[in-house]
Amino acid sequence: MPDRLLYSLDLMGTVVFALSGVLLARRLHMDGFGLLVLATVTAIGGGTIRDLVLGVRPVFWVTQPEYLMLIVATCVLAVPLLRPLSHERVGWLLLRADALGLATFTAIGANKALQLGAPGIVAVAMGVLTGVGGGMIRDVLAREVPMVLCREVYATAGIAGGLVLVLSHAWWGDARWAMLACMVVTLLIRLAALRWHWHLPSFGGLERP
Amino acid sequence: MPDRLLYSLDLMGTVVFALSGVLLARRLHMDGFGLLVLATVTAIGGGTIRDLVLGVRPVFWVTQPEYLMLIVATCVLAVPLLRPLSHERVGWLLLRADALGLATFTAIGANKALQLGAPGIVAVAMGVLTGVGGGMIRDVLAREVPMVLCREVYATAGIAGGLVLVLSHAWWGDARWAMLACMVVTLLIRLAALRWHWHLPSFGGLERP
Amino acid sequence: MPDRLLYSLDLMGTVVFALSGVLLARRLHMDGFGLLVLATVTAIGGGTIRDLVLGVRPVFWVTQPEYLMLIVATCVLAVPLLRPLSHERVGWLLLRADALGLATFTAIGANKALQLGAPGIVAVAMGVLTGVGGGMIRDVLAREVPMVLCREVYATAGIAGGLVLVLSHAWWGDARWAMLACMVVTLLIRLAALRWHWHLPSFGGLERP
Repeated sequence: MPDRLLYSLDLMGTVVFALSGVLLARRLHMDGFGLLVLATVTAIGGGTIRDLVLGVRPVFWVTQPEYLMLIVATCVLAVPLLRPLSHERVGWLLLRADALGLATFTAIGANKALQLGAPGIVAVAMGVLTGVGGGMIRDVLAREVPMVLCREVYATAGIAGGLVLVLSHAWWGDARWAMLACMVVTLLIRLAALRWHWHLPSFGGLERP
Repeated sequence: MPDRLLYSLDLMGTVVFALSGVLLARRLHMDGFGLLVLATVTAIGGGTIRDLVLGVRPVFWVTQPEYLMLIVATCVLAVPLLRPLSHERVGWLLLRADALGLATFTAIGANKALQLGAPGIVAVAMGVLTGVGGGMIRDVLAREVPMVLCREVYATAGIAGGLVLVLSHAWWGDARWAMLACMVVTLLIRLAALRWHWHLPSFGGLERP
Repeated sequence: MPDRLLYSLDLMGTVVFALSGVLLARRLHMDGFGLLVLATVTAIGGGTIRDLVLGVRPVFWVTQPEYLMLIVATCVLAVPLLRPLSHERVGWLLLRADALGLATFTAIGANKALQLGAPGIVAVAMGVLTGVGGGMIRDVLAREVPMVLCREVYATAGIAGGLVLVLSHAWWGDARWAMLACMVVTLLIRLAALRWHWHLPSFGGLERP
């Protein structure tokens, strides 16, 4: 049943994005409640933008309090578990947690747009917006360079995943496999880009940023 | 009647947040119309996010033009009155105006969520989001470090206030007293934190930010 | 027929704001897909905020995929055409494209609010919010100083244009001419400010930012 799969994926994406908020909060030496706020906006930011734009109201977490509870639980458990990690390890984990969240939320966002009858190009855009939205808010608040503007194939992974979802949905007519294909493609591209420092040729060439 | 109290509090929160926008605009040497824009997004930002997420449409200030008029009036009056203030005094006032706005809007946001039947944890999150939203947008636009990420017990005050509102609402069943209790608790915690430079232990310990 | 005019203006504003995103992406050496994301949020950001606040749902680009297609086409065409430009020329063009987008979207936003029966002051605010919204998101993501906070008569141009639209709409009762008047006024003020380095007296005087 796609609905149960969807729900499980959504909870997983919520946990990993909350975790990415916790990791960034650690790097910024925030206190426990600031950390909770940062983890929350990261975890529910993308889905909130998605529901607002698609006209779903109220936004999902208002009627499903388990999302907020899950975020609180993630923070409470993550803080002691992550304490022994070194600075480098935190940075390494942050990028991987974010990649998993990107893959999951891209699939969910694109799928939700298709279910509501949106055209393919809109579904790709909704997927990318849902996938990058939470991390964008996190990075803007923390005054980091948003990952989507970095050159390591971040937006590319989301757009490729969205295209895979739309095409495989049209081909197989099955939402479940389309979502899994989208997640696998997005995650593999992003992890490979991190592993081998891939980047596309940048536009503008001469000067360094 | 809670509605009149709610309305008065909302107007007061609008004035103090508009004032916090004016004070920050002064520090950034913005011109009169840039100042008006910054004061406006600060004053209506939190309530706009609240109404969007809760699915209230259109957003409150579209049908109630008195909010925008009040913001214009606040800017027109505040500019000459604040001119003689020194740089330090402006910084001092900015933090206090923001604290009063935080307390007021946290109470209003959490109360509005409860009235619409949201669960307690959602009401706390809506309170915090409404309370910190306007100031967050103000600080992000002005490229300041968002106050909610500072360590001086900012998010903590909002979360404590939201919890007080939800608990006292469940206990007394009276929205009016619950809101006042929430405001008093939020404001006292935040002012005390500013006065005695409270901060919670930060997470991550060794390196300085 | 105002509707066809409105539609043409909206497409033009979308193209020029997408172009401003491309130009900024070039300055930041982003890759092709990051550039596409930045162009997209810039081009649809203002209209998305407008539709959300006014309670139009879903947001316009969900049911009108031609907007996203136009943005993709703009990026594909702009990248090779803009490649030979020097750094200074890119900065120069960015400010002009942004000014044209500001003028167009201010007129559209204020007009849409009036059509939905909003009061004059709300229409002015919606015009400014629609006009500055996309550029604001662009600049915040790219960690540039938001143009609306610069002193070169940016917010002033939008507010003046919005007032012209509301007044000429009340006077002539014709949406078409009111929108054109608003666009001309906004664009001329902003271009003149850029040309002769106009700025209003700033508030706060002594210290430099």
